[in-house]
Amino acid sequence: MIIINTGDGKGKTTAAIGQIIRSLGQGFKVCLIQLFKGEAFYGEQNMLVKLEGLDFFSFSKEHPFCIKDVTITEAAERCKPAIVKIKEIANNGKIYDLIVLEEFNIALRDNLIDKTEFIELVKLLSEKSDVVITGRGAPRELIDLADLVTEMREIKHPYNKGIKSRKGIEF
Amino acid sequence: MIIINTGDGKGKTTAAIGQIIRSLGQGFKVCLIQLFKGEAFYGEQNMLVKLEGLDFFSFSKEHPFCIKDVTITEAAERCKPAIVKIKEIANNGKIYDLIVLEEFNIALRDNLIDKTEFIELVKLLSEKSDVVITGRGAPRELIDLADLVTEMREIKHPYNKGIKSRKGIEF
Repeated sequence: MIIINTGDGKGKTTAAIGQIIRSLGQGFKVCLIQLFKGEAFYGEQNMLVKLEGLDFFSFSKEHPFCIKDVTITEAAERCKPAIVKIKEIANNGKIYDLIVLEEFNIALRDNLIDKTEFIELVKLLSEKSDVVITGRGAPRELIDLADLVTEMREIKHPYNKGIKSRKGIEF
Repeated sequence: MIIINTGDGKGKTTAAIGQIIRSLGQGFKVCLIQLFKGEAFYGEQNMLVKLEGLDFFSFSKEHPFCIKDVTITEAAERCKPAIVKIKEIANNGKIYDLIVLEEFNIALRDNLIDKTEFIELVKLLSEKSDVVITGRGAPRELIDLADLVTEMREIKHPYNKGIKSRKGIEF
């Protein structure tokens, strides 16, 4: 099954994290491949590294949108090992029950990874594992391919009132 | 801050679980009060009971919609200790950084708890803690009160193709 969490609202990443916890709780083996998440910033990372049954990989930790001295070219270069890792998993036997590809929709949106290649890899992965892909702006081709798509839609957000992101809530 | 995860799509509960993991990862103290979730069914429960820094309470484990021999009156009766627990927390000093009230929107929708009393309690809780409330059909009064509201909107769901809920994904 291919699952997509997209939309402009809060909850795409946290729902994926919750999905990981649920799956681990059923005794399943899980892999999380994360893009654009600086280490020791997001609270969940401190927890995830400690969980048995979860393999956790983090690549291209800085996104050019947030860190101005990282160029698009550099970011694309740093996404390559993530694709190598996905290929490695896809070309192996069944290793994981659940594979979470965090913020890959953003990498697709910004052309940091190749869409055609990525979609082929997701198809391969989904033959053996459930695959969750997160990030706003999921491309149409991925939505068409997916079995379950949720749009996290912002009804109300304190950012709009000028309130800044807060520890334990947004990171 | 008061946060609501509502809507018909997947991700309301998993986003709340992810929020708990994020918050615990920042070293915060968290309380989860859950309604209508049968024990040893949802994978996350096996994980949550093991996490340090989290107090986890589960009440009214059977919802009349799912378990036909539970009446509305019985379910309402079994929600009372949840409200007692919330009152106890609200009337104490600051105990928790984050309080998650899972499926309370459903309890409100089905008149299993008193809306006016619940909203007053949420106001009290939010003076000291961040409060997350989940469940489809959040009432207008709660949305008006909240700071951050996300609608998990179903774009595509395999239920609609007749595929049943699966271990590790829906529970």
